[in-house]
Amino acid sequence: MRKGEATRAAILERGVRLATQIGLEGLTIGRLATDLGLSKSGLFAHFHSKEALQIQVLDAAAERFVEEVVRPAVRHPRGERRMAALFDSWLAWTKSNSVPGGCLFVAAAAELDDRPGPVRDRLVALQKGWLEMIAIVYRNGVSERQFREDLDPDQFAHDLYSVMLGFHHAARLLRDPLAEDRARAAFERLLSSVRRQRRTA
Amino acid sequence: MRKGEATRAAILERGVRLATQIGLEGLTIGRLATDLGLSKSGLFAHFHSKEALQIQVLDAAAERFVEEVVRPAVRHPRGERRMAALFDSWLAWTKSNSVPGGCLFVAAAAELDDRPGPVRDRLVALQKGWLEMIAIVYRNGVSERQFREDLDPDQFAHDLYSVMLGFHHAARLLRDPLAEDRARAAFERLLSSVRRQRRTA
Repeated sequence: MRKGEATRAAILERGVRLATQIGLEGLTIGRLATDLGLSKSGLFAHFHSKEALQIQVLDAAAERFVEEVVRPAVRHPRGERRMAALFDSWLAWTKSNSVPGGCLFVAAAAELDDRPGPVRDRLVALQKGWLEMIAIVYRNGVSERQFREDLDPDQFAHDLYSVMLGFHHAARLLRDPLAEDRARAAFERLLSSVRRQRRTA
Repeated sequence: MRKGEATRAAILERGVRLATQIGLEGLTIGRLATDLGLSKSGLFAHFHSKEALQIQVLDAAAERFVEEVVRPAVRHPRGERRMAALFDSWLAWTKSNSVPGGCLFVAAAAELDDRPGPVRDRLVALQKGWLEMIAIVYRNGVSERQFREDLDPDQFAHDLYSVMLGFHHAARLLRDPLAEDRARAAFERLLSSVRRQRRTA
């Protein structure tokens, strides 16, 4: 990694953390410069506009998500074990990102849902990509004859996302000590509804 | 209703609408006064502080929620029919409140989850009350021998809330044209997992 890239990565890392605390909409070049103790003009040279900064912060968070959630999961065998690993690492991500600001994607979803523009577009593209990834892991499980093939993989992805939104809400807003147990129970119920009843080896 | 109460109710009605658009945190006495074309000092006499205004706006939204969601549902027979009616009217509420600002409670949850104070406390109390209400409707269904008694009513409430969060996310952020179909499919899957298999009349 060249020096310029390392600097950029470090700035974005800080941008992600700041965005989870103050909201993505509040993340301006000036605010980030103050936070880093850098000059605003210096940051402007890197990012050019608030929107470009916010989009790159989303992309940086998505890269971390791939590193922390997707990559560990795909080391597991396709099918239920991979899906369970995905759920575990996603839960760990949501928890580790719960302090202090919560998952950036969930927070940004509520902020941006009624604000058309390039930042919202990027968030939507990232979320759709993630749902598509879950659907692929589901289809792998169908190929492995572990999951039912008569169900819609996109519905599964939607339902799994709902489980995680419920966890985020219970843990972050309600401070429910049972939030993780409830999420795991919901995931188990979801899995049990998609398992093939009879294995035909 | 006396005149003062009617005025207050009209102001709060406008406050609820404004809060769904600009966020509950952005709802100040000054901002609401501007929006209504009233004097700030006049509104101060009604609400005394920003926090008191925000709490009363939450309470006003909760009253509307009871009117529009809970009251129509409890006209239906206890058990699955009442639960289905509750889901239908809740979905209608989330849709009718989707333009322009989304459900106030969902939006406020994301805003307030890391902001301790009396407004957050009220939101948490309202949300817990709503989850408790769902659990009661579940227990009614157990008494009617329609729902399984070996399951945790609070888990059902958590899971139903997750279904609705997933709907809100798919409809509002992703603009998924299948959002409602997916929510109904998720609800049906949830119901089918709690139905008693054998009726013992």
